[in-house]
Amino acid sequence: MSNNGFHGYRGEELPLSGITVVDLTQIVAGPFATMTFGDLGAEVIKVEAVGRGDRCRNIDPIPEYFDAVNRNKRSVGIDLKSEAGQRIVREMVSDADVFVESTKPGRIESYNLSYEELREVNPELVYCSITGFGTDSPYENLPAWDMLVQAMSGAMSMTGEEDGPPVWSGLPSGDLIASMYAVQSVLAALFARERGSIRTEWIEVPMLDAAISWLTVRAGYTFGTGEPFPRSGDHHPSLAPFGVFDCNGDRLVIAAGTPSLWRDFCSVIGREDLLADDRFSTMSDRGENVEVLTEIIEAELATDSSERWVERLQAADVPAGPIHDTETVWEDPHVRKRNLHRVMERPDRQDADVIDHPVHFSALATQLATPPERLGESSAELLARYGYDGEDIERLVEEGVVE
Amino acid sequence: MSNNGFHGYRGEELPLSGITVVDLTQIVAGPFATMTFGDLGAEVIKVEAVGRGDRCRNIDPIPEYFDAVNRNKRSVGIDLKSEAGQRIVREMVSDADVFVESTKPGRIESYNLSYEELREVNPELVYCSITGFGTDSPYENLPAWDMLVQAMSGAMSMTGEEDGPPVWSGLPSGDLIASMYAVQSVLAALFARERGSIRTEWIEVPMLDAAISWLTVRAGYTFGTGEPFPRSGDHHPSLAPFGVFDCNGDRLVIAAGTPSLWRDFCSVIGREDLLADDRFSTMSDRGENVEVLTEIIEAELATDSSERWVERLQAADVPAGPIHDTETVWEDPHVRKRNLHRVMERPDRQDADVIDHPVHFSALATQLATPPERLGESSAELLARYGYDGEDIERLVEEGVVE
Repeated sequence: MSNNGFHGYRGEELPLSGITVVDLTQIVAGPFATMTFGDLGAEVIKVEAVGRGDRCRNIDPIPEYFDAVNRNKRSVGIDLKSEAGQRIVREMVSDADVFVESTKPGRIESYNLSYEELREVNPELVYCSITGFGTDSPYENLPAWDMLVQAMSGAMSMTGEEDGPPVWSGLPSGDLIASMYAVQSVLAALFARERGSIRTEWIEVPMLDAAISWLTVRAGYTFGTGEPFPRSGDHHPSLAPFGVFDCNGDRLVIAAGTPSLWRDFCSVIGREDLLADDRFSTMSDRGENVEVLTEIIEAELATDSSERWVERLQAADVPAGPIHDTETVWEDPHVRKRNLHRVMERPDRQDADVIDHPVHFSALATQLATPPERLGESSAELLARYGYDGEDIERLVEEGVVE
Repeated sequence: MSNNGFHGYRGEELPLSGITVVDLTQIVAGPFATMTFGDLGAEVIKVEAVGRGDRCRNIDPIPEYFDAVNRNKRSVGIDLKSEAGQRIVREMVSDADVFVESTKPGRIESYNLSYEELREVNPELVYCSITGFGTDSPYENLPAWDMLVQAMSGAMSMTGEEDGPPVWSGLPSGDLIASMYAVQSVLAALFARERGSIRTEWIEVPMLDAAISWLTVRAGYTFGTGEPFPRSGDHHPSLAPFGVFDCNGDRLVIAAGTPSLWRDFCSVIGREDLLADDRFSTMSDRGENVEVLTEIIEAELATDSSERWVERLQAADVPAGPIHDTETVWEDPHVRKRNLHRVMERPDRQDADVIDHPVHFSALATQLATPPERLGESSAELLARYGYDGEDIERLVEEGVVE
């Protein structure tokens, strides 16, 4: 990676080097969290069901869906319904620092892998459960799909056109908000354990509660006005000009959300006369007259291409940009320069496309070490480490305990 | 808080007790991060511009917008353009662990508070910059408003109705994704520092890159198919029945995303006959015939109220729920039971509405200690701690250095 003095994009020290995470999660919320631990240098042992593996392995497109959230992990296939399989996981946990699971309510107890049981095996364990609604919730047993969390948390109600239905956010935020809370909570526990202020920890991250915590200033709107925060489609509900604008059938975003940005914007489009126009004097005037303002702006934009307007506006430091989709975003000059789309080589099969860790460090580093593995790709190597010899492993595979 | 054995909602040990954060952020991304440090037990010193303070203090509704992301902080008003003001911040930093800033490019150098300068003052400092695009980006100087980040990251392109324009997600995800990366990166650095593997750290979290990292499986779709991930309004693009359904003018979400949930769903609506209907045999059949399926389902739903259907579906563990808005969400039985909407008393003025930290711990705890403060509410107390006597403070206030 490039490194210009301390402003390097990553140093050399992996913050979680030497930390081992045993990972009993699948789909998106859990795997994104454990992938982050891997990015930060932890060894992540991904325990998957024999025969099937993480459900994501069978979601189209295969293998790209799975690959998106499973780099930096070692895959071990284990039958958790078997005593022998449970024993293997306990052996791994006895030597690990962190255990993360996102199984259905009751499932982890049926595997004999509850916190009560695992802290007997490892009295310094940090144990993290990612749940939909959590212990004690009226919805405890309800499967928490991302869209349901978006709906029940209030997020969906704010998204969509003013006169249209609430729509789903394409980003799986119901999953990923919980994911990042899991990461930060485990890191906080590791820090506290390292300082000696706790010995072991149990953490539960309920997806619904996590999503609700993100309402922040939107909830503030309601606490202050008594009204729900409105849907406003592709425009800001109170600032103007601020939103999506049409430019000869193309679309761009312009976010001139302060008086000085408004002045700069008018200057770029050659319409300083608008600054003296009573309809547009204050932000609130512009908000009230947003329709006529949008018409005026789009008429000016029509005189050139969307790309050129973005260039000109950006050159004047007026926040403006294209609306990238998940295909065009990788061609953006910033994204190319950052090298965010990375390819991890897999000698024996198709390479894996991944998105690099987005944070820059100086002394610390993140890694892209292990490409997403096949189900059970590391079973033999890891079992050997835990004292199983070749014959043991062969027998366990024959018995269907290990894959 | 309630505490049933180790499954307590919070223990007693604040993970960041004894940690001091000097906070030079405003609006949403930075303040949400530093609020989290406060939740986890750090002392957060919020440095605000004299005369004006955090820009959020003037965003309607006042003070609820500001209150939403500024609990657990001590407010100090300081003129950072003055040498005397800069000296105060350096004194605070010399005794702190973490410094977080989200100022415009060039601004922090003009304050003489760059990483190079502050690590001279405190060789063990963890310094975190939340930027829009970051050092070295072609967009380095472009103000990164949440909607612009949503547009440029690809998030917006996936959100909206199939035949409509891309719309904005009501959750300020452009801000909050970066915010949570800041939290986890600082925690990782504190952990590494505690272990002795680093002495000091500089961290940069670019908002655009952070948002792009969330594309995860949506990017996987594109890497696998070569197509952008589509907008699909209020329904899942490939699973069915999965989305928003009309029930006599009310709306509910049903997410029957697996074969067994489909069977359970048909049983709850009394339509086991659909299981034998060729049009709906597999998930992909149901996806192809989603329009007629939706018609059939909505006809059944019309026979009762949305509330009753949610109850029945939930009783059968079929993922279903209401679409809450930012007003109704607080009345949800789960949200009431969790006590997520909390009120922090402020003896001398209106109490503050806040959302409690969503994560449950056993040994560790989070706190709601200090309600959001007035600009400069802790100036005198904190300056006294750093050795300024009453006369000094009076003079600094007169000179406009401190508020």
